[in-house]
This record gives sequence, structure tokens and C-alpha cells, in this order.
Amino acid sequence: MENFSKWFHNILKKADIIDSRYPIKGMAIWRPYGFKIRNHTLELLRKLLNRDHEEMLFPLLIPQEQLIKESIHVKGFEDEVYWITQGGQNDLNEKLALRPTSETAIYPMYSLWIRTHMDLPLKYYQIVNTFRYETKHTRPLIRAREITTFKEAHTAHATKKESDKQVQDFIKMYKEFFNHLAIPFLISKRPSWDKFPGADYTIAFDTIMPDGKTLQIGTIHNLGTTFSKTFNIQFEDKDSQHKYVHQTCAGLSDRVIAAMIAINGDDKGLKLPTTTAPYQITIIPIIFKNKKNDILNKCIEIKKTLENEGLRVNIDDRDIRAGKKFYDWELKGTPLKLELGPNDLEKQVIIAMRRDNLEKIELPLDETLTHTIKEYIDKYDDNIAENAWNFLENHVKFTANKDNIAQLIEQGNVVAFNWCGDEKCGRELEEKTGYNILGISQTLDSQSEITCIKHNKPAKYIAYIAKTY
Amino acid sequence: MENFSKWFHNILKKADIIDSRYPIKGMAIWRPYGFKIRNHTLELLRKLLNRDHEEMLFPLLIPQEQLIKESIHVKGFEDEVYWITQGGQNDLNEKLALRPTSETAIYPMYSLWIRTHMDLPLKYYQIVNTFRYETKHTRPLIRAREITTFKEAHTAHATKKESDKQVQDFIKMYKEFFNHLAIPFLISKRPSWDKFPGADYTIAFDTIMPDGKTLQIGTIHNLGTTFSKTFNIQFEDKDSQHKYVHQTCAGLSDRVIAAMIAINGDDKGLKLPTTTAPYQITIIPIIFKNKKNDILNKCIEIKKTLENEGLRVNIDDRDIRAGKKFYDWELKGTPLKLELGPNDLEKQVIIAMRRDNLEKIELPLDETLTHTIKEYIDKYDDNIAENAWNFLENHVKFTANKDNIAQLIEQGNVVAFNWCGDEKCGRELEEKTGYNILGISQTLDSQSEITCIKHNKPAKYIAYIAKTY
Repeated sequence: MENFSKWFHNILKKADIIDSRYPIKGMAIWRPYGFKIRNHTLELLRKLLNRDHEEMLFPLLIPQEQLIKESIHVKGFEDEVYWITQGGQNDLNEKLALRPTSETAIYPMYSLWIRTHMDLPLKYYQIVNTFRYETKHTRPLIRAREITTFKEAHTAHATKKESDKQVQDFIKMYKEFFNHLAIPFLISKRPSWDKFPGADYTIAFDTIMPDGKTLQIGTIHNLGTTFSKTFNIQFEDKDSQHKYVHQTCAGLSDRVIAAMIAINGDDKGLKLPTTTAPYQITIIPIIFKNKKNDILNKCIEIKKTLENEGLRVNIDDRDIRAGKKFYDWELKGTPLKLELGPNDLEKQVIIAMRRDNLEKIELPLDETLTHTIKEYIDKYDDNIAENAWNFLENHVKFTANKDNIAQLIEQGNVVAFNWCGDEKCGRELEEKTGYNILGISQTLDSQSEITCIKHNKPAKYIAYIAKTY
Repeated sequence: MENFSKWFHNILKKADIIDSRYPIKGMAIWRPYGFKIRNHTLELLRKLLNRDHEEMLFPLLIPQEQLIKESIHVKGFEDEVYWITQGGQNDLNEKLALRPTSETAIYPMYSLWIRTHMDLPLKYYQIVNTFRYETKHTRPLIRAREITTFKEAHTAHATKKESDKQVQDFIKMYKEFFNHLAIPFLISKRPSWDKFPGADYTIAFDTIMPDGKTLQIGTIHNLGTTFSKTFNIQFEDKDSQHKYVHQTCAGLSDRVIAAMIAINGDDKGLKLPTTTAPYQITIIPIIFKNKKNDILNKCIEIKKTLENEGLRVNIDDRDIRAGKKFYDWELKGTPLKLELGPNDLEKQVIIAMRRDNLEKIELPLDETLTHTIKEYIDKYDDNIAENAWNFLENHVKFTANKDNIAQLIEQGNVVAFNWCGDEKCGRELEEKTGYNILGISQTLDSQSEITCIKHNKPAKYIAYIAKTY
């Protein structure tokens, strides 16, 4: 994968994931195979969220007055909002925004739905498309003008403590989610100048892409009472006092799928985790004329057996060379391929090939098959996750010398460093190096005598700096 | 249900389906309970479509040039299109439309994807939100400015014959779908002046709402080669000739859910079919202090047993009067309620109550329970479907006398009549009566001597006329 950008663009097209030829910049089509990957990813996500959230669906459009009401918030988005000004042949009385995110759509309703402490905590989410009029270079799934898949959770709580706990719960949930997808991650608290517009603080998940640049793949924001004050979301507490709710919101997008594809790919194509692979097992019959029916029937029998165990299986019975089929399913990243030819059938064996190590192994065609196959794909999942984590861990380098930062980053690393935490210091560091501080990963012992990488002040944190998408 | 409109509005609110207080006319919020109903409805639909279609996802926005390219088509929509004219602080070079429907988004891509007869038939669908700048009175799920749930299937075929066959396949699929939802229907071929803009012909499904007005709940269009000529969708046939594809498209919307709710409701609330009910069974523990744990544990045990059989079950263990719980789940339309109190537990029985007939029946708490309950909800489904069909069949009246049309329709009926099929005659009939011809339900024997309801010309068809939504 010498040129990641080219590889990524190619794989989206060749593996039937995204077609980027739609005639609007930054907007593209989910093709059938990609749509299936997206579906399985969303199923996983919903399963995790539905444990204690409820799903809803809000309108796409937000009246201008409502969008601009929270002034800190709107400043973060105003240059990126698409505006509807006409309906049919008429000019609208009020401009309508395509949601860039839905705080200003949802929170006025929260002020109607929340009355007393009995209504709290309130935990809703939706999975929708959002829009950003990006002026930067766009890239499918990574920087798009239509984000087709945006999960936004919005919670309201009686106390700050509970909202802080909710942030921790989201962190836990995101870890679980990314582990299911074989995506390794760095967690950090974004610096004050890079937090979500309107938030008290932002926790972000980043991953390292094959080109060494970091990609933000998930965020969690403690909104404090910023929005509840703007939109007047109050509740009557047990003590009969009216109080503003404490809020959090948490987002994930198409970038999750981009990361899963990019991190687990190689020159042959995708290596999808079994959680999201449209087919976990692809059976390739090796057909010779006189044995055709025997082979196909056996393949169908095996498919049924595996499906009864809850596995997703397809048979590639296209009338083309077997070699082309192997090539295609390596490209599309099926975790396990099974090959069955006349000789195999006679010997009562089947040839299995894992997508990660590409080793061919002969398995007996007997009652042990299902069990063996399940073990195989478990090992496959463990192995791709381990490789992904190794890659990330090998690309985080600590340095105490600020002159090393540039070189380490240009070698494809994220740099960890000791930091005082001051905004002025951080911004200067960013400006001088041209890179971005991702945020704080760890708080140092207050007794330590470690100093900030930039000057002699005491360091309070370990932070990350990186080249970012 | 004396005032249907009021009943419908109330039930959407009280049963936690839709909140209409969003500050844009014709756009509303799916609340958690409604969202679950919507989800189950979409699951059913996807299951039927996935038999031979593939799901995809296209961008929401359509460049102006592309939208207006098919001139007959755009005339049908131009007064209803929302236009984006600004991105951030800039005016856009080209206006972007919010899709009113996606033919003009999808078909230019079909011209890239379709090359030879090997690529045909091509059958894709998507489920998306669409937008219509409605000037008429809006009503949640029935006439909205954001249609949150729009299933659009788009197929391409080598011959007209195959496209006609596809129309028949869609009719079959829609019948199956509506039967699952306990929605009775009338099928008709829309008159020429009421077909989809750009179509050769349109087949529509209508149902009769409790107020006697018909609601269009599904459409299927044979598009002929109108769009393939406009967007240059050609294929190389077996004879090496380049030919235009024959296309169909077929749509369903939120109205399906509106119809399911309206037709199967009563003064106590919803009566959801088990296919879409968020909970097919609601268990209501009757709790007295000393027996609380025994009762709750038994309820949990029953829930688990039923869930193992694939049923959706909830326990309402809120700390409120049992009477209120019964009221709530009648309102929300759970097909079967189970009530368990200390006396029942002692007697080893449980009280079951079907939502349709509200009869309480004592069932033994033994190994026969699951089986009995499954029979009960099957009977429930059959019964609500039968009632729905009876209502529809009782409200279709044939008349040979045009002076009777108005009275029959005002009594809440759809009127069937003999018709010559001429556009001029049909339009006059609509104008004179103030009602709409739904379309042709049946072709008469050409030897028959029946005459058109309006004059002495021979009748060719039986058609429907109705007051429509």
C-alpha cells in the first residue's frame, strides 16, 4: 500500500462500496456491497446503543432562527451550512438549514419533553445524514459534503456528575464498538481550542491511517448547561427547584467504515472483520462438467449447515475461472473462503483459506466442519485486530525533544509529549510545527518534576500531536 | 371514531408515535414507540425486496440541470421542489434540489452501470427521505413536506415484456406486504391524466380510510423508455444492437404506516398487527407487597420462554395502578396482554386478553402456554385483517346511475361504475362530481352491451371514483 490515497480510492470502487461519479462534489453513492457493510456496522452500533438509549428521528431541516440561537455553537458551523431559500417558485419567508448536526433541532423539543427529575436521564439517538459545505478537498467517507451516516446521541441529566458518568459510559461503549470492527484507537481530551462548539469538554477517538495521518473516528461532548440555558431546558428537581439539565452528545460517522476498510486492507484488497463482512464465508465450487451437480449440491448443503449456525455464507457459482473468483473475494475481503472440487469431494475434504494469512488448509468434510470453521474465523478476527493494534502501537512515539517532532511525524507516527497544558503554549507548538495537538491522553503525577516539551514550566499531561485528516 | 381526523392526530401524540410540534410546517419527529413500529414495517419490506433487489443509497441532492432534464417529469414536481441556493456565506453556482423522488438522481448512473444485456435486469431500491413543498393542508404521515420514509425501487430491463412482468411482480409483492400489515386495498390503473409524470402507465394501491376518503398507499410505474432516452441508458443486446432499456419504478411511503394505524384503530387506541407491534405481548404483573418477588420472577420466566420462541415481549413493572397499565397498552395496541396476580399464581394460571375482542381468558401456567399464546395471536391477526377487509368491501358500492355517485361517496363509499375509458368523459365526470377517478379496476368483456355511466357509448371498464386524500 505505497500510495494510501490511491489505494483507498481504488478499493472503494473495485470492491463495489462507493461510486464517486455522482455529479456533486463530496456526495457519492453507496453501492450494494458497501451498503451491506454499512448495514452490519449499523446493526452492531444499534445493538450497543439500544441497551439504554432509544432511537428517534428528527426532521432534516432547521429554521434559521433556531440554528443561530446558540451563538458559540453556530460560529463553529456557519461557514459550512447549506441553506434552502426557495420552495417551488417561491422564496421562503425564513431560510432553512440542512442539519450540520442536530443540537439546535433536538434541544427545543427537549424543553417540551422534560418536566421533572422523573423524566431524567433522557437518552435518545438518531442515525441520519448531515451536510457540511466543505471547502477543503473532499474524500469519500472521510471528508464529504453529505455525511450519509451520522449517529448522534443526545442525553440530558439532573447533575454534572451524572453527565460526566455518561461521558465515561460512551467511552466504554465506543471501545467495545471499535473492538468489534478491528479498529485500534487513541483516546484524548481535545485541547480547549479544538472542542465541539458549545461544549465544556470533548473526548475524541482517533485512529492512525496507513499513511500515518490520524483520523477522528468518534467524539463525546459534555455540553454542560450551555444549550439548556439557550433553549431553556429545565426540570423540577426533588427539592422543587427548577434547574437546567446537564447535557452530553456523542457522534460517529461514515469515517468508522473508512477506518475499518483502510486499516484492515492490503494490496489484495479488503480484510473485513466477520462482524461486518457481508459474507463471512464464500464457497467456491470447482466445477467440471461430469461432477457439476454433486459439487453444487454439496456446496448448498454446507452453506445451509453453516447458516443454521448463524453464519453469513454465499456460493460463487458464476460461470468464470475459479482463479478470478479467488481474486474477487480477496478483493472484497471475505474472511474465509472454502474451495470444493471433484477430488476434494472424493476424498471427503474441503480446502479452507483465511483472508489474512492466505494459507490453504484441508478440512475433513464431516461433523467437525462447522466447529473448525468457527474456530478459524475467530482466529482470523483475533489476528486482524492484533495486527491493527500492533500497527497503531508501533506508530505512537514519545519524545522529550521538540526538535524531533517533525521528523517522527513525517515518518508516519503520532508523537506523545509532556505538556504544560497552556493554550498559548499549545497553539504556538501547533503553529511552529504545522501539526495538530490531538489532546491530552494522560494526567501526570503532580509531584513529578517533568517539564513541558516547549519550555521549563512543569508538565501536567502527556499529549499527542499528529498530522490529521 | 366519530371524527377521524381528530382521532388520528390524538393517537399519534398519545401513543408516542409522532410529535408534530416541530417548528416547520409538515415536518415532524418520530418518537421512540413510533420509530419501533416504523422499524418493523421496514424490516418486513426489506425482507420482501431483498429476494431479488439490492439496496443502495443515493445522495439527497440533485443538481438543477439534472432534475429538469426530463421535461415531462419535472413539470409534475417543479412547484414542489425545495432549492438550496447558498453554501455557507456563498451563493452556489448551480441550485441543488432536495429530491422529491430520485429518478433524475439515479438514472444518469444507470447509464454508466448498464453496458450489455448481461447487466440486465438491474433491480435496485433505496429507502430515504424525500421532500415536497406542499401548499395544501399538511397532515403527519399522510401529507408531509418531509416524507421521512420513501421506498423507491428502480428496475431496468431488456424488453417491454420484461418490464410489464416486473410491474406484475411488484403488484404481487405489495399484496403480500399489505396483507402482513392488515391493510386492505383496491388496485387500479390510474387514468392517463393522473399517472406518474413520465410513465407509460401507473398501477396504484388505495385503501379506504375510516372517514371514507381513499388514501394512495403504493404505486408502480412502467416508465417505458422515457427516461432511458433522456438519460441515454443503452445496452448492447445479444444481437449486438444498442437498445434503450425499459424501466419501472415503484414507491411506498409513510402513508403505509398511517393506513395501518388508522384502519386498525378504535376508540381505545391502536390495534397493531403482530408483524409491526413493538411488543406482541405485554405482561402486567399485579403486585402486592408480600408476593412481589414471586410474581415478578414468574413474569420474567414467562417473558424469557416466549422470547425464546421469537416473540417480542415486555413487562410493565411501573409503580402505577394496573388499570392505568391496561389503558396504556390498549392505547398502544399490543396484540395480547397477560395479567399475573397472586391468586393467579397460586392457581397456576395467567389471564390473557386480546386487544381486538378484549375478552379475558384464563390460561393454565404449564408447558402448553407458549403454544396457546401463539394460537391466540394468530387468531388476533386473522381477525383484525378480516375486519379491515370487511370494512373495505362494505364501502365499495357499484352504481349504474351517475346521479347516485355523490350520495354514495358522501356516505363514505368508493363507487365502482362502468366506464368507456375516454379522457374527456372521465375529466368531465370528475369536474361535475368534484371527486376523483382512482382508475380502472377491471376490463369488461368486449362483447358486453354495458354502457358507460355517463352516456350511451359502450363501457370498456369498471372504474372507481372516490373522495381522495
